[in-house]
Order: sequence, then structure tokens, then C-alpha cells
Amino acid sequence: MNRLHQQLEFLTEIDQLKSITRQTLLMDGQTLENDAEHSWHLALAVMILQEHGDDQQIDLSKVIQMVLIHDIVEIDAGDTYAYDEAAHRDKEERELQAAHRLFGLLPADQAEQMKTLWLEFEAAQSPEAKLANALDRFMPMWHNYKTKGKQWQKHGVTDQMVLKRNRSIEDGSPALWAFAKEMVADAVEKGYLQKETQQ
Amino acid sequence: MNRLHQQLEFLTEIDQLKSITRQTLLMDGQTLENDAEHSWHLALAVMILQEHGDDQQIDLSKVIQMVLIHDIVEIDAGDTYAYDEAAHRDKEERELQAAHRLFGLLPADQAEQMKTLWLEFEAAQSPEAKLANALDRFMPMWHNYKTKGKQWQKHGVTDQMVLKRNRSIEDGSPALWAFAKEMVADAVEKGYLQKETQQ
Repeated sequence: MNRLHQQLEFLTEIDQLKSITRQTLLMDGQTLENDAEHSWHLALAVMILQEHGDDQQIDLSKVIQMVLIHDIVEIDAGDTYAYDEAAHRDKEERELQAAHRLFGLLPADQAEQMKTLWLEFEAAQSPEAKLANALDRFMPMWHNYKTKGKQWQKHGVTDQMVLKRNRSIEDGSPALWAFAKEMVADAVEKGYLQKETQQ
Repeated sequence: MNRLHQQLEFLTEIDQLKSITRQTLLMDGQTLENDAEHSWHLALAVMILQEHGDDQQIDLSKVIQMVLIHDIVEIDAGDTYAYDEAAHRDKEERELQAAHRLFGLLPADQAEQMKTLWLEFEAAQSPEAKLANALDRFMPMWHNYKTKGKQWQKHGVTDQMVLKRNRSIEDGSPALWAFAKEMVADAVEKGYLQKETQQ
């Protein structure tokens, strides 16, 4: 029974992910999304969009589990906004400590499994991690586009910043990256996103 | 590209699940949980608690996908509170129509897959659906217990109502059901849950 108690303690602790706010707006254009909502939506995106991935021999179950746990570290480390370069400097260290504490609540075998899966996501090298990371980048772009760039404008984000930040979508899904580039051009056209003056 | 557009329309539409409020409180005891948060948490519960299931030969990926989509119909049909008997009478019909419309936004092959998966969950007959349903019942009990029965008291729920409503946990996990019964007894002991006078 001690094992079950440890598992339930972990499940109780991670309830806090529902209170970690991101910089992405829900499709209603009003409410900021939280990490639990994002993780759920991303898992659905994996189920529905996997066919656009670069590698059709992918372990789908692994990708889904990866995205379900990928943000749990933010309970301790907080959400780091995509375009906040200063906060990105110590992000890795903060998140490693968080992974150690949070997954460490589980029985040792499961703690190890979860940490390994999270590190694989972070490394973004395996086909599964590449697809997971691609969709993790794509979904906020999609939200921004559908909410007419409200958050891009708020944070002074330009088309070049979006293209630079999200280029790794191509590693997981060239097809989605092609679509994303069209979306950025269209967002500039529609006035959702500021065009950077080319030097 | 038409296929991708249909998929993105579905992913946009289901964003509304983040605004469907349930009667379960977050572990902070203050905020009502929404369906997207619940679905994410439930998928984690499947990953972590699967070993307590009745059938060790289970298709884990299927259980996870099942719980991720199980409440999408509530975007149209609304959340039906566990102890609202009147609302349960036409729940099936309302949810079937919702499944038809919402999954119908997807390309036909995916619409069919999702509807089949959802119907399997609803039927609660396969080992995968039994485990998914067991955890879907267990998690709100756990939330109620950890928030000192605040919602049980608000809705005048008794120990016998909890035991009757959640008995099907046993079909998916006898071990969790044994634990759940102890939890109910302890909740009565601690004054979280009202003991029903035996007739």
C-alpha cells in the first residue's frame, strides 16, 4: 500500500499544474491558458496530427505520454515565456531540480521512467521527442493566429522572432512547418503580427 | 491541405473543453476543475496507477487516448453531475448527438476512430474501458477526500451514495476499490462525509 500512497501523493502534487498560467490565450481571446489545459490539448494534437510527422514508424504512445508530462517541472520552475531570453539562461538548471523533486515523489522505478521520458523530450533528438517538440511549438502559434495576434502584439513579437523561435518545428514535421510559415505571412498580411524591418 | 484544415478546426473547437466546469474542486479547495484539466489529470492517473488494474495485458495507449477524449462531448452536452439523477435520464442521447457533431469535424476516418473509442469508453465493457471508467470515478473521490468533503457536503451526498455511485471502480481495479471503501469510511470518521442512517 505504501506504493499506492506515493503514487497518490504525486497525483495530488501535480494538481498544481492547473494553476500555472502561460502566455497563451484560449481561443476565446480572453483567458490565459494553464499548463494542464495546454498539456491535454497538446496530447490531442499528437493524436490528430501525427500523420504530418516526419517519421511514420513513431511510438505514438510515447509521444502522448511525453507531452502529458513535459510541463510538470513548471510547478517548481514556473513557465518561461518563449521570447524571454534572460529567463531561458537558467531554465535548464531550474527544471532539472524540479524534475528531481517532483518525479522523485513516485516509487523509484516510476520516478526513473518519468525522468527519462522528460529528458528525452528536452533533448529533442529522438523522432518521438522531435514530434512532441514540434507540436509544443506549433500549438501556441495556432492560438496566437486564431486570437488575432493579441499576445504577439502585447509582447512586441515580430515575424522574424516567431520564425526563429519556431524553426525546430521542421525537425518534427516539415509539412507543419511549411504551413506555419504561410500562417506567419498571413498574420503579417492581416496585421496580427509586426513585420520586422530587414537591415 | 484540406485534411489539415479539418483537423485544425477540430482542435480549435475542442479548446472549449477548458471552459466546461465540473463539480470537483482543485486540491486548493477553492477553484472548480474544468474538463480539460480533469482529462489531463486522468491520463496521468492511468499512466501512474495502471498496475492496480485488474488486467495486466491491457493496451495502455488505448486507455490514455480514451480518457483524453472521454469528455469532449460535454462541449455540447454539458457536464452532468454524478449525483443528478434527473439529468442522467437524457444524458446518453445528448452525448451521442454531441459526439456526432464534434468528432464529425474531423476527416471521416479519424471521426470514425474517435467515435468508436468514445463508445467503447461509454460501454465500459472492454478491459481498457473498465480501467478508464474506474479511474474516472476514483479521481473525483480522491479530490473530494483531499478537500475535506466540501463538495459532498454542499450537495448533501452521503456515504451510501458515494459507495453506490462508484461501485464500478471494482470492475476495473479491485485494489483501488478496496482502497476507496477505506477512504469513504475514513471520510465519515473525519466528518467529511455524512453517514446515511440505515433503514
